[in-house]
Amino acid sequence: MAENKPDESFLRRAIDISRERMRANLGGPFGAVIVRDGVIIGEGWNEVTTSNDPTAHAEVVAIRRACQEIKDFSLKGAVIYSSCEPCPMCLASIYWARLDRLVFANSRDDAANIGFDDAFLYEEVGKAIEARSIGTVHHPMKEALAVFDEWAIKPDRVPY
Amino acid sequence: MAENKPDESFLRRAIDISRERMRANLGGPFGAVIVRDGVIIGEGWNEVTTSNDPTAHAEVVAIRRACQEIKDFSLKGAVIYSSCEPCPMCLASIYWARLDRLVFANSRDDAANIGFDDAFLYEEVGKAIEARSIGTVHHPMKEALAVFDEWAIKPDRVPY
Repeated sequence: MAENKPDESFLRRAIDISRERMRANLGGPFGAVIVRDGVIIGEGWNEVTTSNDPTAHAEVVAIRRACQEIKDFSLKGAVIYSSCEPCPMCLASIYWARLDRLVFANSRDDAANIGFDDAFLYEEVGKAIEARSIGTVHHPMKEALAVFDEWAIKPDRVPY
Repeated sequence: MAENKPDESFLRRAIDISRERMRANLGGPFGAVIVRDGVIIGEGWNEVTTSNDPTAHAEVVAIRRACQEIKDFSLKGAVIYSSCEPCPMCLASIYWARLDRLVFANSRDDAANIGFDDAFLYEEVGKAIEARSIGTVHHPMKEALAVFDEWAIKPDRVPY
């Protein structure tokens, strides 16, 4: 990536955030920044334990802030830089946010080595529901499908 | 599940929420409730398009609200009922929230049938990073690993 200096600069910013916020006891050692047209439009760090929000991972927080900043639920055209490979929650949130590209430093195995569940979660998400460690019941109900049918023909629905 | 009436009652509540909030134009046709000791401690519905937050799926919103309600980042001992199978983002958030059990009605394929990406995302999350539709660069940096090393020996870290 020597030919791609901006990438390394923004990735370094994500890492700096991960270090600063960890030292400030705001949460786990993770940071992320979102960049569009060369400008940072959102920064996030892990706030799980200080905000009582288990979904407040660095990437999710950065996505929320960038969306508030640009007042849109789509981050199309933007890039996310994360100090660590996103867990499945964060990876899927990156798709839902329609981000164009992802750059990260540490891997899911590096995260596993310091006690985080990222690698385990990638395994769980890929399993059939009956093989997962969390007890799961699929209980189809016709009322639930009827809501989907109603959405499909709803004239004023907002797709996302 | 005829032998498990509480499950069906809470699942019906999740479906009712999905219908009401969709009709109120608050977002996509999804609802979720979180129950501990037989009491609902959080409810969520899809708010992606009205809150400009692509992570505001019903399950994630329900988790956030339940955690605020009990002032804890762990929902250990609680069950989540969702009108639809959680997408990978929501499923991983359920693990991070340490929920005990998951009950859902519609499936990821039902969601795909009305245009949502859930089934596609399950495929993407399982792929090697170079095979995914989102351009991804793994760029290891020693500064990033140093932050992890620092976390591992941090005496006052709060695990989650």
